[in-house]
Amino acid sequence: MDLDFIRKLIKPSDTKIVMLVMDGIGGLPKEENNLTELESANTPNLDNLAKKSICGLQQPVCTGITPGSGPGHLGIFGYNPVKYQVGRGVLAALGVGFNLLPGDVAARGNFCTVDENGCVLDRRAGRISTEKNQELCELLRSIELPDVKVFVETVKEHRLLLVLRGEGLSGDLNDTDPQEIGKKPLDFKTTSHESEKTGNYVRDFLEQAKNVLSDHYPSNMILLRGFSEKPNWPTFEEAFGLKSAAIAAYPMYRGLAKLLGMSILETGTTIKDEFTTLENNWNDYDFFYLHVKKTDSYGEDGNFDRKVSVIEETDREISRLLNLNPDVIIVTGDHSTPSLKKAHSWHPVPALLYSKYCRPDKVDHFGERACITGGLGPRFPAVDLIPLALANAKRLEKFGA
Amino acid sequence: MDLDFIRKLIKPSDTKIVMLVMDGIGGLPKEENNLTELESANTPNLDNLAKKSICGLQQPVCTGITPGSGPGHLGIFGYNPVKYQVGRGVLAALGVGFNLLPGDVAARGNFCTVDENGCVLDRRAGRISTEKNQELCELLRSIELPDVKVFVETVKEHRLLLVLRGEGLSGDLNDTDPQEIGKKPLDFKTTSHESEKTGNYVRDFLEQAKNVLSDHYPSNMILLRGFSEKPNWPTFEEAFGLKSAAIAAYPMYRGLAKLLGMSILETGTTIKDEFTTLENNWNDYDFFYLHVKKTDSYGEDGNFDRKVSVIEETDREISRLLNLNPDVIIVTGDHSTPSLKKAHSWHPVPALLYSKYCRPDKVDHFGERACITGGLGPRFPAVDLIPLALANAKRLEKFGA
Repeated sequence: MDLDFIRKLIKPSDTKIVMLVMDGIGGLPKEENNLTELESANTPNLDNLAKKSICGLQQPVCTGITPGSGPGHLGIFGYNPVKYQVGRGVLAALGVGFNLLPGDVAARGNFCTVDENGCVLDRRAGRISTEKNQELCELLRSIELPDVKVFVETVKEHRLLLVLRGEGLSGDLNDTDPQEIGKKPLDFKTTSHESEKTGNYVRDFLEQAKNVLSDHYPSNMILLRGFSEKPNWPTFEEAFGLKSAAIAAYPMYRGLAKLLGMSILETGTTIKDEFTTLENNWNDYDFFYLHVKKTDSYGEDGNFDRKVSVIEETDREISRLLNLNPDVIIVTGDHSTPSLKKAHSWHPVPALLYSKYCRPDKVDHFGERACITGGLGPRFPAVDLIPLALANAKRLEKFGA
Repeated sequence: MDLDFIRKLIKPSDTKIVMLVMDGIGGLPKEENNLTELESANTPNLDNLAKKSICGLQQPVCTGITPGSGPGHLGIFGYNPVKYQVGRGVLAALGVGFNLLPGDVAARGNFCTVDENGCVLDRRAGRISTEKNQELCELLRSIELPDVKVFVETVKEHRLLLVLRGEGLSGDLNDTDPQEIGKKPLDFKTTSHESEKTGNYVRDFLEQAKNVLSDHYPSNMILLRGFSEKPNWPTFEEAFGLKSAAIAAYPMYRGLAKLLGMSILETGTTIKDEFTTLENNWNDYDFFYLHVKKTDSYGEDGNFDRKVSVIEETDREISRLLNLNPDVIIVTGDHSTPSLKKAHSWHPVPALLYSKYCRPDKVDHFGERACITGGLGPRFPAVDLIPLALANAKRLEKFGA
């Protein structure tokens, strides 16, 4: 569904919508008992909510596609992730909590090893430590460019972030990473005045970086990828008429929400803290995005039981959510992260939508297999969630007479 | 699916298709027994038919969107309602049974109250009676324009229809209704030769209307909205190769069918009458659209029990339909109208498709929750119904070799 189509139908209301995102919630059954993480978890509150809800399994991008955190969230926020693509440089900036401004150009970087001819020997510089990375970034911060501000930030291990801030820059630049050992970093092939200008600045930066790093073998050079600008999209409020707030403990998710113009609420590090933040800000927003990270983290670690625990921990806070009496509640994830795979996956993500008008189905348990027979269907597009929430919140006009 | 794609696959056959549309059939469960109107109704014939059918729930427009009668019908007739939009003026004309010709420009009107400076005091003139409206429309019919014929028709209460008929007119005109009290009606901002010409005619009409109505406070002016022309779309027969007829007691639905070039069959006011009309014309058409209105009317009234009665009344006529031995039967609605909401809603609409070749699913009852697990899926696009009916009626060629 097109944002422009929905926008014309939006009407104001004083209803409230909460979207609880358990990151990577979907899983795969383990062999012992043939149950997934969510099916194994003891979730009396989510199950009760499921009984009063319409349920299903959503796909953030489309069938067979494993979403990154960016596309996964954009999908459940109602932005078609194939149309609204965030550059990897921008995502790296969001990930470290860097405050991108309009016009900034961001790139992901790797420390790497080059030989005396400048040919790449190791694209990751032997995966140096984060501490070493921090030292080297401090050195790189000495680099100055005329008329352009340079920011260098450590991400993790060999990974870093480069941001240029100035007038008339462009993110339309190819990667310098040759993706192969024995080759020189690639030069820029630019096609516009702006990208040529930006390319010249980055060449200058790389030339200086080479000197700064020359004594720091094996981290004696950097490779850059995913040049991109902060996108200029309709904000969540422009698109859906919702004054919205994000409650998320991790920088990446605060950054994604900020990209859509949501207010970022200060919160603590626990799930309990996040629900307290929800309570404390209840009167000030129409839409709340509450993000639970550790379902994904333990999925990535392959830790089935800890993922189950985080689900149960979240379930125990559901009564606090219900006490606020939201008009619409959505519970879902931004993608699946089966512990069995130790990675994001393409599997559709359990979802429930509760409202007084949701027309409940027969699903009585919030789990992957239970949701298959839900009224939302076994693989519905994630972008349907927000329009459906708006409808249930009486925030959409009738289409046509 | 695109009309052009389907059209290339159409082949002739002597099979017959009946689409029974129970307007606003979908509902919401009431609290006492957690059953919807359709689930509460005693429908042995529809349930039997469901057992031999493929079932599901369809969405006339898309997820979360509440369809008006126009888009709802276009969807089940196979015309994507987002692409094929009917103007509100045209819909008003259809609603009162006005015989629109190609090139006619129609607008909805309101009688309103203006002060001595022409500023709007009441956009609905205190919701005058339909009788008063008829008197005033009679006066407005005295207005003459050069080279253009003017038609003025009472709709209901303060609402009226204006149609201009002439050469080179355009429906591309903004509303004059300022949507706010204390403001003057808006003038036209025209962008083409045709709309400028049409705008001048309407200005002339409004100037004369002001004089005609000056002594009729509070109905001393009119506001106009939804200017539109009769659309020039492929007819139902051009699109799907079906010689088609509409059996509908209410003008709006006869008008919608006529817009698609269906033949309009004379019928009576009861459901029984409509089935008699079907029997009497059985040999003359390939496709019959039979419309039951009162499921929607009682839904809009919030009258759960009467809506149930109309469903049961329709169910009793199903044997007459089966006796005709149609090759394909579709039973569905143009949208949901839950009695609980007293209005159209976004909820998907139960649908069954029967044919000898339909490949039945396990659904054994025609109801909202039963249809979720049907073979058509819990929220399939309504535009799929006609292509599927054509396939079952052996009216589509294989695609590709």
